Amino acid sequence: MAASAGPEIERLIALLGKLPGLGPRSARRAALALLKRRDQLLQPLAQALSEAAAKVRACQVCGALDTSDPCQVCSDPGRDNALICVVEEVGGLWAMERGGAFRGRYHVLGGLLSALDGVGPDALRVTELVRRVGEGQAREVILALPATVDGQTTAHYLAERLEPSGVQVTMLARGVPVGGELDWLDDGTIAQALRARRPA
Amino acid sequence: MAASAGPEIERLIALLGKLPGLGPRSARRAALALLKRRDQLLQPLAQALSEAAAKVRACQVCGALDTSDPCQVCSDPGRDNALICVVEEVGGLWAMERGGAFRGRYHVLGGLLSALDGVGPDALRVTELVRRVGEGQAREVILALPATVDGQTTAHYLAERLEPSGVQVTMLARGVPVGGELDWLDDGTIAQALRARRPA
Repeated sequence: MAASAGPEIERLIALLGKLPGLGPRSARRAALALLKRRDQLLQPLAQALSEAAAKVRACQVCGALDTSDPCQVCSDPGRDNALICVVEEVGGLWAMERGGAFRGRYHVLGGLLSALDGVGPDALRVTELVRRVGEGQAREVILALPATVDGQTTAHYLAERLEPSGVQVTMLARGVPVGGELDWLDDGTIAQALRARRPA
Repeated sequence: MAASAGPEIERLIALLGKLPGLGPRSARRAALALLKRRDQLLQPLAQALSEAAAKVRACQVCGALDTSDPCQVCSDPGRDNALICVVEEVGGLWAMERGGAFRGRYHVLGGLLSALDGVGPDALRVTELVRRVGEGQAREVILALPATVDGQTTAHYLAERLEPSGVQVTMLARGVPVGGELDWLDDGTIAQALRARRPA
């Protein structure tokens, strides 16, 4: 990669290349940009990463990543406890928040059921969701899961598991493009799909 | 961006978004990937950045970035002192080294002459190059500069400045596509352009 630049730079390039969206060439470009802007970029990024590693925790209520536990959404008294929005990952939560149309609570599953990858319900935060719904004030659970096979399988499974609790289970409307990942949608589409949600 | 995730995560996303190749969305994805792989990716990257910030220096001979000074190329006794290859930035040096066709020395200019951006010879390591050629054993200076207007302007200027020293000044052959940046070429093209170099 950069065999003439010392093991530290090679290691930096290798680690940057593991980030989604950066291949070997763009990782080299990124490393070079960092090294050329030591005080403005390299040092601050090193510090931001160290702080994130030290402070960011999974919220014990919803599973989101935040520096406070419970997270900012869970500890916000102005949010509607009657609504719980289930997302695959924190990226989905961030996307919903950018849309700005949802003022309820969240539950981060931590993945999707997948027969192919051998992901069963025990690997996800399903029991926590069922308990939260059983103990809390939730009247409606909105499944904001991707419109993929695994996403829909997970949605059907969750609807079944939540049926005994009597809570209303809905899912985002057909505004989500088939095969689309929640994190890549524009904010308007997310808001529209939320408004047009229908029973699962 | 991720207004619900605490200032530390927002700051991390903002810094990642400053890297070339990462926009706001891919910066969020990268931050999420880092936070989800704390031990395998986040901590190691934080450490690699800190080490790079502490150890990487500009080589006092050629201007390359390396953890040793003089850099690995400058301190390699097996390299040919008669050849000096001038590159715009360290990325160009790395690209030349990946090609593997060059066994001489390097000189990193630190940029290109640009009337538009107000970059004059004093902002570049031109004086250092002229002195190196005057004092050293160089018989040929190969200008491996991009085939852009600024690159060609810089090449002509350097050829003029080096003329009194009597050194032969060549430039990479017309294998480099017009408008192309050295760092994005495939290794074969670089090797070919090096073999077919011609007088400037």
